[in-house]
Amino acid sequence: MSVDPVALTADLVRCPSVTPTEGGALVLLEALLSEAGFTCTRVDRGGVANLYARWGAKGHGRTFGFNGHTDVVPVGDLAAWTHDPFGAVIEDGWLYGRGATDMKSGVAAFAAAAVDYVTATPPDGAVVLAITGDEEGDALHGTTALLDWMDAEGERLDACLVGEPTSPDHMGQMMKIGRRGSMTVWITLRGRQGHAAYPDRALNPLPAMAHLMARLSDHVLDTGTEHFDASTLAVVTMDTGNAATNVIPAETRATVNIRFNDAHTSDSLRELVQAEIDRITRDHGVTAEMEVKVSGESFITPPGPLSELVSAAVQTETNRVPEMSTTGGTSDARFVKSHCPVVEFGLVGHRMHAVDERVRVEQIHQLKAIYGRILRDYFAGEPKTFR
Amino acid sequence: MSVDPVALTADLVRCPSVTPTEGGALVLLEALLSEAGFTCTRVDRGGVANLYARWGAKGHGRTFGFNGHTDVVPVGDLAAWTHDPFGAVIEDGWLYGRGATDMKSGVAAFAAAAVDYVTATPPDGAVVLAITGDEEGDALHGTTALLDWMDAEGERLDACLVGEPTSPDHMGQMMKIGRRGSMTVWITLRGRQGHAAYPDRALNPLPAMAHLMARLSDHVLDTGTEHFDASTLAVVTMDTGNAATNVIPAETRATVNIRFNDAHTSDSLRELVQAEIDRITRDHGVTAEMEVKVSGESFITPPGPLSELVSAAVQTETNRVPEMSTTGGTSDARFVKSHCPVVEFGLVGHRMHAVDERVRVEQIHQLKAIYGRILRDYFAGEPKTFR
Ligand SMILES: [Zn+2]
Ligand SMILES: [Zn+2]
Repeated sequence: MSVDPVALTADLVRCPSVTPTEGGALVLLEALLSEAGFTCTRVDRGGVANLYARWGAKGHGRTFGFNGHTDVVPVGDLAAWTHDPFGAVIEDGWLYGRGATDMKSGVAAFAAAAVDYVTATPPDGAVVLAITGDEEGDALHGTTALLDWMDAEGERLDACLVGEPTSPDHMGQMMKIGRRGSMTVWITLRGRQGHAAYPDRALNPLPAMAHLMARLSDHVLDTGTEHFDASTLAVVTMDTGNAATNVIPAETRATVNIRFNDAHTSDSLRELVQAEIDRITRDHGVTAEMEVKVSGESFITPPGPLSELVSAAVQTETNRVPEMSTTGGTSDARFVKSHCPVVEFGLVGHRMHAVDERVRVEQIHQLKAIYGRILRDYFAGEPKTFR
Repeated sequence: MSVDPVALTADLVRCPSVTPTEGGALVLLEALLSEAGFTCTRVDRGGVANLYARWGAKGHGRTFGFNGHTDVVPVGDLAAWTHDPFGAVIEDGWLYGRGATDMKSGVAAFAAAAVDYVTATPPDGAVVLAITGDEEGDALHGTTALLDWMDAEGERLDACLVGEPTSPDHMGQMMKIGRRGSMTVWITLRGRQGHAAYPDRALNPLPAMAHLMARLSDHVLDTGTEHFDASTLAVVTMDTGNAATNVIPAETRATVNIRFNDAHTSDSLRELVQAEIDRITRDHGVTAEMEVKVSGESFITPPGPLSELVSAAVQTETNRVPEMSTTGGTSDARFVKSHCPVVEFGLVGHRMHAVDERVRVEQIHQLKAIYGRILRDYFAGEPKTFR
């Protein structure tokens, strides 16, 4: 078989699969992959549809996996689009639509590459496509559900490539070998309300909050590590909502977002913030409440055989040496990394999540070629587990 | 004539004169005062009713003035009142109603005292009652309108007593010889929006605001002056309104309320805040906007003949030596002080602006007696201008 990845991208874009709607995208992929000899299992959980497709016998030889998502963010301002966001219109070499870069083209490219490869030269091992419908949402029942199911079923990967867009400007410019962690901390400080003319009779939580946020934002968490940029802490909001200028309020709130490298864990950072809060409550007499949400710990697949394999394929197809980066927000690689070595490589992220999201048609072909080369190189020679 | 100040208070409470409604209160007083020989002029401006009543010839001899207001704040939670807030019900020695202490009883006491005095022993001079219907509102067209009109008409006072409630607990406990000034400063800091994962590409105004508010709230403005408590600065709100934890916002706002003594002026404080803002915009690269509203400068009528006259009358009638204080919020004395020496003396401020506002009936009689004694003492002996 030879699958046209552009036609497949267009078919997927025409499925209105805004998270958590399946929209026909996984059904379409399941039909294609089953026909090509993949064993397909729908791993649905919590109202989310996911697809696990394996070519080759479970537990026989090495297994290479691709991970991606077919769900997309909402259209946003529909009137501002120059083309139907679910129309997949091709104009001047661009394919337009929601998900065109993030990441129906990526899914189409690895599905097409995998089908071509296993039908042309059946490898001595297995190829797995683990595709989720909940990456753009809260991701509670997406790749996590697939991994939980894999654990229960004894399914395993030896290495995995996530097909998210990774390059800022040029095809082949960048791959990701890890990501910083991300956590959000909500802080409430409480004092005692009173009249602004008599601050001594009240206990104003606002100076305490100002000092706390000044100290936290001045804190240098680190200056970067071998593979990571410096960790960052951003105060993203401070709110009180007191409209009475003659009243000292009893309570005020602030939110801090932290992106952290492998010099920290969410636990160590929670302790750091707690220590600063303790100092402030001691010095100012206010009481405090802290709520923490960890979106993901930092993770890294250090440069090695897997990243070299991907890098070599990218160089051959694009004549560029991809930078091994750990920048960017979170991706589902944060879940996969607990299962096996994982890297990310995909298209240029043109207008991801924005109006007129689009992808260059020739880059979809190029991406399929890169993924195909990765599969050939992976299964060539001695078995590779990369562990 | 002998006017019952309790009956007059009750009549005034029955007038629903919530700012800026006249409610019949000034009409009632004008009728009473005209009958007693006062020349009455309604000095209405900007939708507010005010009453100027003079007994005696303009410009003949010394002139003593009383200042007060008949407007009241809204009822608030009507269901929580145990008596009709405009019913003037007397129970267990208390007269209940909105304005019972703030300050229809004060107006009734000085009107009754003045009528009794001028009709019994006509003085060699003039007695003026300057009564406004806009003290509880924004006060743009209240006592200010009366003073503007007086200037235009060549009317003048040699001394003035404002009849606001002045004692926290006991009759005769406290008089006011000045007040701290009050001003509010609204500050907006602006940076550049961006993604929380890349703080370097954004310009977060929140650390700048945290540092600015920390510095301002740490600032010791002074430790008090001869007649004043220390000046105070209260951060009353900080607001951003950013719900997206992965976004650094472009803008944040804070409000500061300053109560200041005679070591400062609103101009000197505006400069102090501006200097702190300049430092922050320089250090953090943000831009700033500042808006200032001055409710009143600080003022003082230093202890001297006028305060001694009032203090002596209070001592005689209550056996208490009133403390000469400058505490509390603002009052219309802040306008009168530009015209002539002014002090404030009145009732105990039971539940001012609260539900079940009420006054002890015997204290209204007592207050009338004090005001009457002040008039007799003022006009006894040599002319006093107190300037
Ligand atoms: Zn994506
Ligand atoms: Zn008042």
